[in-house]
Amino acid sequence: MTDSRTTDMLKAQLDTPCLVLEAELLDQNIRAMAQWVASGNKRLRPHAKTHKCSVLARRQMEAGAVGVCAAKLSEAEKLMDAGLRGILVTSPVAAGRIDALAEAAKRDPGIMGVVDCPETVRCLQEAAQRKSVRLKVLVDVDPGMGRTGATVEGGIDLGRFIRGCSALDLVGLQCYAGHLQHLPSYAERCARSRQALQAAARVFRQFQEWGIANPIFTGSGTGTYDADCEIPELTDLQAGSYLFMDAEYRQIGSAEDPLRFRRFRPALTLLATVISANQPGHVTVDAGLKTLFPGRVPPEILVPDHPGLSYEWFGDEHGKIVCAAGAPKPALGSRVELVVSHCDPTVNCFDRYYVIRQGRVVDVWPIDLRGCCW
Amino acid sequence: MTDSRTTDMLKAQLDTPCLVLEAELLDQNIRAMAQWVASGNKRLRPHAKTHKCSVLARRQMEAGAVGVCAAKLSEAEKLMDAGLRGILVTSPVAAGRIDALAEAAKRDPGIMGVVDCPETVRCLQEAAQRKSVRLKVLVDVDPGMGRTGATVEGGIDLGRFIRGCSALDLVGLQCYAGHLQHLPSYAERCARSRQALQAAARVFRQFQEWGIANPIFTGSGTGTYDADCEIPELTDLQAGSYLFMDAEYRQIGSAEDPLRFRRFRPALTLLATVISANQPGHVTVDAGLKTLFPGRVPPEILVPDHPGLSYEWFGDEHGKIVCAAGAPKPALGSRVELVVSHCDPTVNCFDRYYVIRQGRVVDVWPIDLRGCCW
Repeated sequence: MTDSRTTDMLKAQLDTPCLVLEAELLDQNIRAMAQWVASGNKRLRPHAKTHKCSVLARRQMEAGAVGVCAAKLSEAEKLMDAGLRGILVTSPVAAGRIDALAEAAKRDPGIMGVVDCPETVRCLQEAAQRKSVRLKVLVDVDPGMGRTGATVEGGIDLGRFIRGCSALDLVGLQCYAGHLQHLPSYAERCARSRQALQAAARVFRQFQEWGIANPIFTGSGTGTYDADCEIPELTDLQAGSYLFMDAEYRQIGSAEDPLRFRRFRPALTLLATVISANQPGHVTVDAGLKTLFPGRVPPEILVPDHPGLSYEWFGDEHGKIVCAAGAPKPALGSRVELVVSHCDPTVNCFDRYYVIRQGRVVDVWPIDLRGCCW
Repeated sequence: MTDSRTTDMLKAQLDTPCLVLEAELLDQNIRAMAQWVASGNKRLRPHAKTHKCSVLARRQMEAGAVGVCAAKLSEAEKLMDAGLRGILVTSPVAAGRIDALAEAAKRDPGIMGVVDCPETVRCLQEAAQRKSVRLKVLVDVDPGMGRTGATVEGGIDLGRFIRGCSALDLVGLQCYAGHLQHLPSYAERCARSRQALQAAARVFRQFQEWGIANPIFTGSGTGTYDADCEIPELTDLQAGSYLFMDAEYRQIGSAEDPLRFRRFRPALTLLATVISANQPGHVTVDAGLKTLFPGRVPPEILVPDHPGLSYEWFGDEHGKIVCAAGAPKPALGSRVELVVSHCDPTVNCFDRYYVIRQGRVVDVWPIDLRGCCW
């Protein structure tokens, strides 16, 4: 079995390493976030950079999402190929890609980009005029991370400048606090995120004063989604990882943190096989750095099947399953199921998800945005 | 421009992030290793897990390599699709893939696998009988890393067992000291690698005593290739990274180490674009963890174009280019060229190499083994 995978098989028969999705947990996560967001009178515009899969984007929309986000224009183009519309590209577009963004607006006038400086605004205006399109633009506001985004004052100035551009439509602002999503303390994480969004809300209120109709204020992530909903001005959440839950997000949870234990379950796992078992205290599996991207915490071995085991990276191609004293050593040829460490770049290494119900492969979904990084 | 890339363009026009190969440096690296290996009366069987590209495998063979290695069977299958034969699969094959290995031997009787325990030998023998093929097998000897491989004594026993299997041909041994390739001290790295290979050479001599015709003894990597050639029994080098040279390998070099400064040059680089420049001391580029795999050292910014700059990862999608005091800040929209940190998993994130001569794209080579991990 190489590329021509069928759905007429058991999970236990899949070649490893491979990514599997437990359909029931996935549906539950999709519903849980949709319900949470609706209950706070917010909208969900989840990030496709996490799953890189147009089938999943569509399922999120069917469950109530108002749209999806893409990190790069090439991701948005793939989503458009699959029929999705109104995509928000959350990274400022590179200089060489501005014409392509204007081209994309011909296919979908609803596509949205973000800007954080006057120079890019000028380039967008020129490209839109050259291509005879209008471009929807959000101001990117820096949450104090220094990665992309203008200051609050700068964001207001930028909004004013965009309003003066004949081919651009100012539709809102973005403030994404990526640096806070994995802070270990729930209280600190939420407090700092609220503080960043509260500051950015000034830009939103200015846009309202200017009479911008229903401006978008998008931000938030899986680490702070609940606290962020307390910001009245925030309109859209762009969380992504809630869909899968990886070991990094599970690890930051604590008893006081509703995130970890209650709402979202690990829907995405990686299957690996023991290929060497010559050592007393560990075995070697066929999944290493190329298939389990190294995040802040190691992949989590799913219990109850494997008590006393832990995963350590063992080079590009292999993983080490360390057995605590007294833990039974997995047999040669047996399988280990792992919650991946950091889901986004791990998913980006694979071409497909195997969708599982009751131990059977019920579907195969292409990771059709994989590798789209430009 | 999305997937339909042409070769009629300048390097400076490529969408970023993307991988580029400087053809002249690449040819030089290919020639340099071929000459070195020939001068030591060894053979080169370079590892395709590094480049994941059948075009590059073929070029290595045209320059004198006797074959290529693959880390996993799925890589070997792709190489076979491209017409390559006699591939050595360097990881013990997972239980579920043994029938597929026997199938592969129908297409190419020259394919070779490694084993490190009697249980796998038995499975291979049964599969070969079931499929009516003969399988060429190498004994994998552990260099003291504990990842895969038998002990020296165990390796001899395993060889004896394989000789008694009617459908298997014992063709040699493998001893790959992956844990030593990046030791900072050149002297220690070489001494420990020689020690590991010297120990494994006992298995080789035993195979000779049994009358195995021209047994293969394969091992070595880019960190120890020169020292390893001093082992008389070693027949084949399976180095891979010499082809590209990444920041990890360049960093371990020192004045006493011929590796870094003389023989191999950085043929593989990643192009990135500055997409945000609002901060005083740094700018943000469009290449992060998803396109520059995080190794032990950060990507290296190619001088002389960018003195005083250094790269830091800035999340999945972005990188931070930090400007030392007095260093000119790269302008918004300008390009930065980086020697990647760890080439193997970085290459595995991309679909193609752009091949450059004198600033022009002269070819596009598909990374056709990308994602083949099973």
